[in-house]
Amino acid sequence: MLSVAYDGAPFAGFAAQPGQRTVAGILVEAVQRLDPSVGQVRVASRTDAGVHARANRVVFDTTRELPSRAWVLGLERHLPASVAVFRAAQVELGFEPRRHTESKHYRYLVLCRRTPDPFYAGRAWRIWSLADDERLERMRRELAAALGTHDFGAFASARDPRRHRVRTLTRLSVTRLEDDRVAVDVVGDGFLHNMVRILVGTAVEVGLGRKPEGTIASALAGRDRRLAGMTAPPDGLYLESLKMSREGVDAWPG
Amino acid sequence: MLSVAYDGAPFAGFAAQPGQRTVAGILVEAVQRLDPSVGQVRVASRTDAGVHARANRVVFDTTRELPSRAWVLGLERHLPASVAVFRAAQVELGFEPRRHTESKHYRYLVLCRRTPDPFYAGRAWRIWSLADDERLERMRRELAAALGTHDFGAFASARDPRRHRVRTLTRLSVTRLEDDRVAVDVVGDGFLHNMVRILVGTAVEVGLGRKPEGTIASALAGRDRRLAGMTAPPDGLYLESLKMSREGVDAWPG
Repeated sequence: MLSVAYDGAPFAGFAAQPGQRTVAGILVEAVQRLDPSVGQVRVASRTDAGVHARANRVVFDTTRELPSRAWVLGLERHLPASVAVFRAAQVELGFEPRRHTESKHYRYLVLCRRTPDPFYAGRAWRIWSLADDERLERMRRELAAALGTHDFGAFASARDPRRHRVRTLTRLSVTRLEDDRVAVDVVGDGFLHNMVRILVGTAVEVGLGRKPEGTIASALAGRDRRLAGMTAPPDGLYLESLKMSREGVDAWPG
Repeated sequence: MLSVAYDGAPFAGFAAQPGQRTVAGILVEAVQRLDPSVGQVRVASRTDAGVHARANRVVFDTTRELPSRAWVLGLERHLPASVAVFRAAQVELGFEPRRHTESKHYRYLVLCRRTPDPFYAGRAWRIWSLADDERLERMRRELAAALGTHDFGAFASARDPRRHRVRTLTRLSVTRLEDDRVAVDVVGDGFLHNMVRILVGTAVEVGLGRKPEGTIASALAGRDRRLAGMTAPPDGLYLESLKMSREGVDAWPG
């Protein structure tokens, strides 16, 4: 099991797709340089096109008995600068990382600047008018309605096929950071497709006064995607960390 | 006069060169979309290939009477994500920004991680072994010798043609930041070619024990490039800010 960070901007998402540059595609190619028999990888959290990860988990089955350190350092030589493996651990054949993910922490980054910042190109959603503290406070109040256990049906894209849409969010915070940045941190036991991006997009629209306060609460009650707001762009979304029920053994670094 | 930030990684430096992608080339093209008669731009600090800027100054002569705001917002539409103009002010025809630069602040960023970080690809020098505080303290002591007024002849690349090599450094600090980063901040009234990169490269070699303590002091005394250490890679170098004796009038944002 590999711990993996990637800049999502140059990729058509995590999942392998024929003819597309994907994170899975890049990882499989690198792993095959060390074990040509590996056919695919399994991931804890499939991220969409343009979405970043600081600590996703990727598992593959291999019979090549290399120590964890050799996997990390060996893969480094075959990965582009946009993808890094920073830890490896041994898990049993067939280990399914999604089943062992207990909670996920996403961070959504907003850049409150009048003009673009080259160092955040593709890595934040730029909204100058959120430099205003009252608007940020309105976002904070709005998002508080989503804390706890709810049916998040209104906060899923039409592409999400799952029928069970009850999820629990244990953290929803809005923090002003240095360098004109605002972070929205969301922690929960599971997420529907685009759920963080629709929550953030709706909260921003309320913060800016384009939608009335109480929109998130009404959308949760109505369970209808049309009651919620816009989907925030992928650029600002980072999968920050995953809490796993099992992290494997013989990890490097330890 | 424009205040300009850019990610240096995709560029062959600031200065225009035929057949190369340079920051000056990109800026001239954008300015010409608003005033086709502009032939070139003048810059306060010519940065090398791969070196970044958070606040350089660029001046051009135009007879098109646009307010500063119109220049900033108009140029934004013609610039790639790696270059941003974040301020404009009016200066007189022929204004020479280099003559009006009183001091420069450079920051050199080191990343103390075992493995690469995709979010700092091309934007830091990765040295895992500087995670050690004693080594950092050795760097700090070594750099202190360069504070004040010296002949920096040993800290200039062979490409620097200037004969007067006395410069004054008013700040040389080494700070551990969050996220495994170390910043070397250097402020001075002027810099020879590669001066910051040779100072940092030498201090790192001393910090790691590859060169003896006192190397910087000896090199300053001997004024010979061969007495100093390696040139640090451009990736970690940022022109942070410039102190100008004149900033122009009618600036936007004000």
